[in-house]
Amino acid sequence: LNRFEAARHVLDGTAREPQREQGCAFAPSNIALCKYWGKRNEELNLPVTSSLSISLGDLGAHTTVKPAEKDRLILNGRELAANDKISERAFAFIDLFRTGTALRLEIDSTINIPVAAGVASSAAGFAALTLALDDLFGWNLAPRQLSILARMGSGSAARSITPGFMLWHAGNDEQGMDSYAEPIQETWPTLRIGLVLLCEGEKAIGSREAMKRTRGTSALYQAWPRKVYEDITAVRHAIETRDIDILGRTAESNALAMHATMLDSWPPVLYWQAETIEVLRKVWALREEDLSLYITMDAGPNVKLLFTEADASAVSEAFPNIQIVTPFANGDPD
Amino acid sequence: LNRFEAARHVLDGTAREPQREQGCAFAPSNIALCKYWGKRNEELNLPVTSSLSISLGDLGAHTTVKPAEKDRLILNGRELAANDKISERAFAFIDLFRTGTALRLEIDSTINIPVAAGVASSAAGFAALTLALDDLFGWNLAPRQLSILARMGSGSAARSITPGFMLWHAGNDEQGMDSYAEPIQETWPTLRIGLVLLCEGEKAIGSREAMKRTRGTSALYQAWPRKVYEDITAVRHAIETRDIDILGRTAESNALAMHATMLDSWPPVLYWQAETIEVLRKVWALREEDLSLYITMDAGPNVKLLFTEADASAVSEAFPNIQIVTPFANGDPD
Repeated sequence: LNRFEAARHVLDGTAREPQREQGCAFAPSNIALCKYWGKRNEELNLPVTSSLSISLGDLGAHTTVKPAEKDRLILNGRELAANDKISERAFAFIDLFRTGTALRLEIDSTINIPVAAGVASSAAGFAALTLALDDLFGWNLAPRQLSILARMGSGSAARSITPGFMLWHAGNDEQGMDSYAEPIQETWPTLRIGLVLLCEGEKAIGSREAMKRTRGTSALYQAWPRKVYEDITAVRHAIETRDIDILGRTAESNALAMHATMLDSWPPVLYWQAETIEVLRKVWALREEDLSLYITMDAGPNVKLLFTEADASAVSEAFPNIQIVTPFANGDPD
Repeated sequence: LNRFEAARHVLDGTAREPQREQGCAFAPSNIALCKYWGKRNEELNLPVTSSLSISLGDLGAHTTVKPAEKDRLILNGRELAANDKISERAFAFIDLFRTGTALRLEIDSTINIPVAAGVASSAAGFAALTLALDDLFGWNLAPRQLSILARMGSGSAARSITPGFMLWHAGNDEQGMDSYAEPIQETWPTLRIGLVLLCEGEKAIGSREAMKRTRGTSALYQAWPRKVYEDITAVRHAIETRDIDILGRTAESNALAMHATMLDSWPPVLYWQAETIEVLRKVWALREEDLSLYITMDAGPNVKLLFTEADASAVSEAFPNIQIVTPFANGDPD
């Protein structure tokens, strides 16, 4: 089963021609508290484990899609070359939703996440593109179907279809029809996420390649799925009880375990920079001083902080170079 | 069963009074290629897994023991206070071998390992002390018995009783009578170990506490014993065939996996400094240039290099601040 068949299965008989002049959408970026690390199916981006994320409020991608003379991708106001890897990936994604190549589309996407924050923009990008296509083609698909489609563009995009806490079910289906993210119906207005802006470092390998290598070579990875399962249970409980210490501790442990499996891969995968260690030590020192401050990290050197409003000023003081995100700024997620 | 009973079991009816004026011995330090990480018995230093090491030639401890007015420990010419942790540990160790407290001993130990190399001196120290006590009391114990006794001072001291490659069997016996190290009867004259001298960093937790925490809290640790088992098989094969790439790759992977389990512990254990990452990246870059150069690390920020004579000058050039050890300088280990 390939991506085309899977997309056809989701779209069923729905339109593959534009129903209006253009499609528009916003999708938030998201950060996993329990990570997606390792695929059971590379083609469909089906994960080995479930994962759980929090969206980043109004940080994300605003995307417009409209028919054009040729496929074009405009990212933050700049048109990318057709043979740019990002363009190729975006055009290959829209191929899933059009018949033949008669229809050409212009994708205009604005992503408001600072590059130095090290938050992957592909999740927001593919989610917003999926939502914009839904708008353009008039599919009116349910979030579950949209999550399945977005997943085929970028795994973590499955979790960017709606805001708030999202649980992406690993699923068992070979075609991935049960592998989608759904919202956890809880808000946490005092929760804060801090993006520590680091300098750009040496270029590391991509996360797709890194997770493939981990799954293929890390002996410790065999204990990872069970850990994620337990961590998801703990984080869900922490969300229900608004317990920042359980949430933070579980998320930090989960992120460090993911980096641990990378280190255990061959050749070893190490995304950390010298500065990463400094930030980690600083966080641990502040925790010794009774701050409820925890970290999470993705496939890069950057550190993201988890805390609540109560500690926000202390955190700002300790990390002057921080951008603080309020995931539930408007109360309920829509 | 405690240490006293275990020591009595080994010594059986042998002397607990000096048979000569003083006992003297040298024991080499050793570096594990397959690590000792986690105890199944804290009191007897019985390990969860077997481990495999290489001794550091003439780097180690020269120790003299002789009767004195009171217990004294002189380390590198300086007498330590009686309530110093190192003194307390040494005196508690000699308690295993004397009846009551009538006999007082002066331990004079010279350890020629540069502190900045980050090679634990406790292995060489307790092994040399055990050998010196054997000399003083005239036990004439076999290396196997000496290894069992040294282990009770410091686990890795079990591997410092004789030079060369040493395999420490985890054993099954509750009293630890089958948990000793024995030499692997192979030499490798062209093998080199590079000690990269790092600045002293922040004080981290001790390895005893770190391995306890790992065993108690790391989910990934459950996959560690099997990995060590496979790594030991691979290293033994590499030694037999003089294959630096298999040896190095296996040792590096094993060391990074050990650090991975620390990272996965709670609270996380991170011995690395910013400089550690720089050294790792440098080694990986040199490997890209076809140098057969690998690393190992212990419970500290320091990096030790594994290579052969063929690459020694290239390694010296890349790491001006290195001390190169030749484990088999005199051909066969004695």
